[in-house]
Amino acid sequence: MRSHHQTDTILPIQSHQPLPDGCLLAAVDLGSNSFHLIVARTEHGEMRPIKVLAEKVQLGAGLVDSRLSSAAIERGLECLTRFAQALASIDPGRIRVVGTNALRVADNRREFTVAAQQILGAPVEVIYGREEARLVYLGVAHTLADDAQSRLVIDIGGGSTEFIVGQRFEPQRLESLQMGCVSYSDTCFPEGIINRNSYRQAYDLACLEVSRIRYHFHSGHWAECVGASGTLQAIEAIIGKEGWGDGGISREGLRQLETRLLGFDRFDDIKLEGLGSQRRNVIVAGVAIASALFDVLGVKVMRTSPGALREGVIYDLMGRLGHEDVRERTVNALLQRYSVDTTMADLMARRACTLFDAAASGWNLRKTDRDLLQRAALTHETGMAISHKHYHRHSAYLLLNADLPGFSQEEQEQLALLAATQRGKLDSPLWAAVVDSDRPRLLRLITIIRLALVFKYVEQLEELPEFTVKPEHSALRLEFPTGWLEQHPLTARELQHEQMTLAKQGLELEIC
Amino acid sequence: MRSHHQTDTILPIQSHQPLPDGCLLAAVDLGSNSFHLIVARTEHGEMRPIKVLAEKVQLGAGLVDSRLSSAAIERGLECLTRFAQALASIDPGRIRVVGTNALRVADNRREFTVAAQQILGAPVEVIYGREEARLVYLGVAHTLADDAQSRLVIDIGGGSTEFIVGQRFEPQRLESLQMGCVSYSDTCFPEGIINRNSYRQAYDLACLEVSRIRYHFHSGHWAECVGASGTLQAIEAIIGKEGWGDGGISREGLRQLETRLLGFDRFDDIKLEGLGSQRRNVIVAGVAIASALFDVLGVKVMRTSPGALREGVIYDLMGRLGHEDVRERTVNALLQRYSVDTTMADLMARRACTLFDAAASGWNLRKTDRDLLQRAALTHETGMAISHKHYHRHSAYLLLNADLPGFSQEEQEQLALLAATQRGKLDSPLWAAVVDSDRPRLLRLITIIRLALVFKYVEQLEELPEFTVKPEHSALRLEFPTGWLEQHPLTARELQHEQMTLAKQGLELEIC
Repeated sequence: MRSHHQTDTILPIQSHQPLPDGCLLAAVDLGSNSFHLIVARTEHGEMRPIKVLAEKVQLGAGLVDSRLSSAAIERGLECLTRFAQALASIDPGRIRVVGTNALRVADNRREFTVAAQQILGAPVEVIYGREEARLVYLGVAHTLADDAQSRLVIDIGGGSTEFIVGQRFEPQRLESLQMGCVSYSDTCFPEGIINRNSYRQAYDLACLEVSRIRYHFHSGHWAECVGASGTLQAIEAIIGKEGWGDGGISREGLRQLETRLLGFDRFDDIKLEGLGSQRRNVIVAGVAIASALFDVLGVKVMRTSPGALREGVIYDLMGRLGHEDVRERTVNALLQRYSVDTTMADLMARRACTLFDAAASGWNLRKTDRDLLQRAALTHETGMAISHKHYHRHSAYLLLNADLPGFSQEEQEQLALLAATQRGKLDSPLWAAVVDSDRPRLLRLITIIRLALVFKYVEQLEELPEFTVKPEHSALRLEFPTGWLEQHPLTARELQHEQMTLAKQGLELEIC
Repeated sequence: MRSHHQTDTILPIQSHQPLPDGCLLAAVDLGSNSFHLIVARTEHGEMRPIKVLAEKVQLGAGLVDSRLSSAAIERGLECLTRFAQALASIDPGRIRVVGTNALRVADNRREFTVAAQQILGAPVEVIYGREEARLVYLGVAHTLADDAQSRLVIDIGGGSTEFIVGQRFEPQRLESLQMGCVSYSDTCFPEGIINRNSYRQAYDLACLEVSRIRYHFHSGHWAECVGASGTLQAIEAIIGKEGWGDGGISREGLRQLETRLLGFDRFDDIKLEGLGSQRRNVIVAGVAIASALFDVLGVKVMRTSPGALREGVIYDLMGRLGHEDVRERTVNALLQRYSVDTTMADLMARRACTLFDAAASGWNLRKTDRDLLQRAALTHETGMAISHKHYHRHSAYLLLNADLPGFSQEEQEQLALLAATQRGKLDSPLWAAVVDSDRPRLLRLITIIRLALVFKYVEQLEELPEFTVKPEHSALRLEFPTGWLEQHPLTARELQHEQMTLAKQGLELEIC
């Protein structure tokens, strides 16, 4: 039996205690070019890598018409069976697996992610470009001196390139552009043939992309430029080994590399000091992209950092499990940005969590579901900043489309789903798009948020009575004190509406 | 020949001079219950009514499955032929015709509005509920003493009820609920039969609606309550004439009226002092709605004001033509709310207006088109507040769905259209939805905003050369100085993209 009278303030999502030393954490980065794995141990609030793996899977090279080829999926899953061995001893709650551009754009991503989840024993999260940029920055920032000067961090990936201007551990501007060394190789050098025209096409295309973000990322905005990722590290290595520069990448070094590369006829012919054979297929496109961004943004010299996405994921995970979950900060920022009435948001979150706690074990719901529900309840009114009319749809639009640091695509989709279905008919396209295996769990969360909304309005008028919540397989029974519903015909009517709406989805709401 | 070098700041949309005395202005309110007309003359910044007409058309009574019946359309157009006579001597630029709920919800509204425009010789604007609320408040505020106390203004219409909390001439909160005396009569008293159950149903339904806005509109937020519209005026008149109160509407007076009404069996039987026969069909639903809002919001007594939507439209028109166009303030508020980079917004607006001025006469574009284009250019980046990725779609979403005081539905749709089509493919559903007769004009505006965007990015890099703009029927020719395009391959490529995109819509962009 749960009471709705409680007056405690909103429950903290976590403990805000740093992780103790000696915890094992793991991150897997399912990139468009390479897959990376890192296992690390916590030490004094930092992380010490224990095992680091990388394989050139080129998942993005199999992308045709926004579909991963079965060969690419197979290459990817084979790699993961090897990674799985390194993850076997780690608590699944301490493993984070993130997918980037190739999985973002692939319509058939589930063919890969569902199998990947099974192999790794941990959920696979596809993250948005800006979230990727944030994590890259986090990974890089931990490798740099903690000085106050602004820096531009660039990560040329297989399918996308991330740009971040930041200071210390704080990213200030994040951008992700749809250009990468794998996709540009496919587009501009289809047969692996190198010539001046193809190179110029790749360079021009990259200039066009980068020019869109020039305004906020040009050299007037930062003091130093740092490159992350294999492509830029390879370029730095070649320039060093070939003697075209002493440390870092300069435009002059790039120019000499361009000239040398244009001397080869085909990718297969490329031979350069410091270039591994696995990178031959993408180095020409990578150099074209690097040259374009040097020219458009006014980069004179760039040094590289060994930190990258996977290290960022580990640091983010340390925050989540310990002192600060970035998602919490994101939710607060969202409430502020859209001037949400926090009294109402808190009330709604308390209602939702109280109902959740009463139904959780009977309905087999987990801690992550509670976090999701609580965040959905806190943000359910964000859309009112756009308009009161259909505000739940506007909330859903914002939650689906906004850059929400710390959230995966799926988490954003589920937040948006709960916003869209908090009231009214269950006719949201977001609900229609939910895959069968997720429907029962999400319908239970939808039921809870809808009931919380009914009680939110009632709460504005008067106190609610104690009532009992009994969850069953596809039913929920609410028992009110005798006579209470008769005296509250508005609430009774709203609950009847809920009964009808939920019955259509196969969930029986019993009210007595 | 137009130059892009000019450095003047953004052009004011209007003169900011008050209208001189003696101007004739007219407003027509196409309400769901009644149509109203007012012709007024300006005097010392106020308006003096010269002619006032009202007819109970009950346009909303013909609404079945979101369609106006042909009988209702005929009733409406007949009324307008009479109104047209009173408008014949007035400058069409000084007539504003607004449609409210019945036209908002009717899918076949164009069957009415196109014919109405022809009859009245002035455009018919369908306005959103909150815009209606703003205008009602404006109309009411001008009839009240200019004291500083907060007031709640309520207008029970035929299809919607507007709620406004405001002070002096400033509305602070606006709400429009889908409940009105015509729609509730249709729903709860389908055969015009009165009984206790039907009345209770109407009252409950209204309570449910009003309870959603109780939080921000209850009696803790205001010192006095003022009613507008025929329904509330009729209720006040009956209560006065029947001797159930002395001035204003009290809950006790309402209760006596409820009791008396429940004593009649059918609408046709109703006989009450002060009630015209035209209002008999809607008074019972009106009293149910009024009682519900008294009870839910805690209204003790309400007085009525003769000011209403039509007066508000006149005052708004005086602002538009004279000292302040509310739309200008709305655009500025929008830029602020979504933290738009105003340097970029101004630059874009200047580019767009310069191109517009060069093409306007050749393309037969008007002042209202320039205003629309300029506002679209100023707001084109609002969606960046949501995300840089697909920002143009987010801008369109915001412009379509936000409450934009002063804008009609069509204006919002066109602003959103220009935001959505500022770049990328012309595959926006907003463009697909444009009716044939509007397409040529809007395609020209789309062309201008797209070119302005191309030049916006170039402008960030360097100065543009002088170039020539030559508009033809379905073509636009841009002539650059010799060699300039060759030296600027990025711009040349972007212009080529524009050529291809616009050619698919039948507009030839010539570049040389």
